[in-house]
Amino acid sequence: MKKHNFSAGPCILPQEVFQQASEAVLNFNNIDLSLIEISHRSTDFVAVMENARSLVKELLGVPEGYSVLFLQGGASLEFLMVPYNLMKEGGKAAYLDTGTWANKAIKEASLLGDAVVVESSKNKNYNYIPKEYKIPTDVDYFHCTSNNTIYGTQMKEFPATPSLMVCDMSSDIFSKKVNVADFDLIYAGAQKNMGPAGTTLVIVKDEVLGKTNRTIPTMLDYTTHIKKDSMFNTPPVFPVYVSMLTLEWLKKNGGVQWIEKVNKDKADLLYGEIDRNPLFTGTAAVEDRSNMNVTFLLNDSSLEGEFNQMWQAAGCNGLKGHRSVGGYRASMYNALPLESVQVLVDVMQELERKAL
Amino acid sequence: MKKHNFSAGPCILPQEVFQQASEAVLNFNNIDLSLIEISHRSTDFVAVMENARSLVKELLGVPEGYSVLFLQGGASLEFLMVPYNLMKEGGKAAYLDTGTWANKAIKEASLLGDAVVVESSKNKNYNYIPKEYKIPTDVDYFHCTSNNTIYGTQMKEFPATPSLMVCDMSSDIFSKKVNVADFDLIYAGAQKNMGPAGTTLVIVKDEVLGKTNRTIPTMLDYTTHIKKDSMFNTPPVFPVYVSMLTLEWLKKNGGVQWIEKVNKDKADLLYGEIDRNPLFTGTAAVEDRSNMNVTFLLNDSSLEGEFNQMWQAAGCNGLKGHRSVGGYRASMYNALPLESVQVLVDVMQELERKAL
Repeated sequence: MKKHNFSAGPCILPQEVFQQASEAVLNFNNIDLSLIEISHRSTDFVAVMENARSLVKELLGVPEGYSVLFLQGGASLEFLMVPYNLMKEGGKAAYLDTGTWANKAIKEASLLGDAVVVESSKNKNYNYIPKEYKIPTDVDYFHCTSNNTIYGTQMKEFPATPSLMVCDMSSDIFSKKVNVADFDLIYAGAQKNMGPAGTTLVIVKDEVLGKTNRTIPTMLDYTTHIKKDSMFNTPPVFPVYVSMLTLEWLKKNGGVQWIEKVNKDKADLLYGEIDRNPLFTGTAAVEDRSNMNVTFLLNDSSLEGEFNQMWQAAGCNGLKGHRSVGGYRASMYNALPLESVQVLVDVMQELERKAL
Repeated sequence: MKKHNFSAGPCILPQEVFQQASEAVLNFNNIDLSLIEISHRSTDFVAVMENARSLVKELLGVPEGYSVLFLQGGASLEFLMVPYNLMKEGGKAAYLDTGTWANKAIKEASLLGDAVVVESSKNKNYNYIPKEYKIPTDVDYFHCTSNNTIYGTQMKEFPATPSLMVCDMSSDIFSKKVNVADFDLIYAGAQKNMGPAGTTLVIVKDEVLGKTNRTIPTMLDYTTHIKKDSMFNTPPVFPVYVSMLTLEWLKKNGGVQWIEKVNKDKADLLYGEIDRNPLFTGTAAVEDRSNMNVTFLLNDSSLEGEFNQMWQAAGCNGLKGHRSVGGYRASMYNALPLESVQVLVDVMQELERKAL
């Protein structure tokens, strides 16, 4: 039985992508070689990298003057690369603190300069997105996290900034339309809506680079990778290939416009049930609820054992909440079908009938 | 027809590994989920990471007091992490210059301190390994590259050092016995003898860390990864899994002792033919010839077209030499069977019969 996979990441990808990736590991492009045994400089793999990069540009409508890179190290390495590339010597950057990942980004920036926290939602365990704050005019950039997987919050709007605009979109990129021209740098670990773990997407406006007066180590310098078309050193071949397949799937089905609607339908269905069903309570502020990660509590914790048994029996997977929030978390990334959300909602309703 | 894959890397892995990896992408451990859609914190994946790390320890006889890590970024990122972690503020390190990769390592170390080149074989296009050199006593570490894929040279012995000993073993780790206790830090990109591109092995003696007085960025600090059992952030799931499978294959067949003999047989066969066949000349100094990458020239370049056609028709792949050396390069990593080398030797002999 195929599972209903609500895992927070790495997470579900389209079934046809698993099929294609599995075949490529045995025989890639009918060249009688495995995808993972060919040179990354071979025509076949160079075409994969180029296709992956153009799909990103096409699906997100990336304007001219931006470069698209597939790097390694996860968003965690980007936390360091961003200040290295954008924060001037003795410079300053503004950060919005919306949780764990924002904090990790702030920590790395503090090693290289002054990382000013413009606002934080820590006072309420990050269950909302701060909205009233001022970004200082003398910072090199403003940094925010568009979606917070742990707390189930998502930025619905982005502030106007007097500085460069940087966003960690690891957990909601490709889930909805975004105006790339509003950003100078976007980064995202692949392992939510784009592909398997092991590669990191970077979209950067070329003209903002090379202005810090810093000596940047080779691998941490975005220009190193831009000059070599994202192939400065051996790229993570399999993760890039599977990302390409996933982006092809997205394009074929109608792109970001299509998936935004699907994701809204899934979110409406589950949040609707949480709000209606007297057994459950959502943990995030209603106006900041994430369409990707739905965090909720069972009001009567004595029902947990039964609920867990029921959703597991229904084939659901990955619903345990993060320890910082507790309760449950249903991650509903692009590849999760509406049908899986319906299965979970049915279980919630069945629990209600049993319990009340 | 299955190819005889002499690719320099990423490169051939065991056929049974392709089969197992392909199946895991569809259904991992019979859990009805793909390997690449499960959480890296799941029991199933944690077991993979632990197994991969213990196989490294077992196969190489890693002593107590060393940590084994699977990181990202390739050897290129290690070129930076090594000085960050081992070179004191205002410190000095000694490097042996045996080619392109050594040079890249030297460049990154120079950003953080004084990188002294103790000797170089650049004068002869790196076709030999320097042997007469003195390592200064006041350096923090000595760094060398055990095998040079481009030039087909390999260190058969390692010098005694008055300092810490660091080695980039990207292209010959697991190909022969090595006394890990002689080294303080060993690193290697996976994509030769260990697995697919996308992960980097690090073996480090714990007691040498934390002594530089430097502020090390989180992701570049080996202690970050040691404390979290190589799972500080989402690891490259698929590359680590396939590395585990490849190490299991090596263990099952007799380990490093077994493969060292196989690799010697392959090297004897091909170098024997190069030395015997009047059409060919090896490019590396005989005493420094690599058992992994065999570089050779066709003496009469007018035969190249015919030779290329012949080995391609015989199912060989990846024999074109690197542009820095020209001619041909046969990479014979662990998973390449002796039979494939015999096919190449047969083609060389057939060319001789035709040409003479």
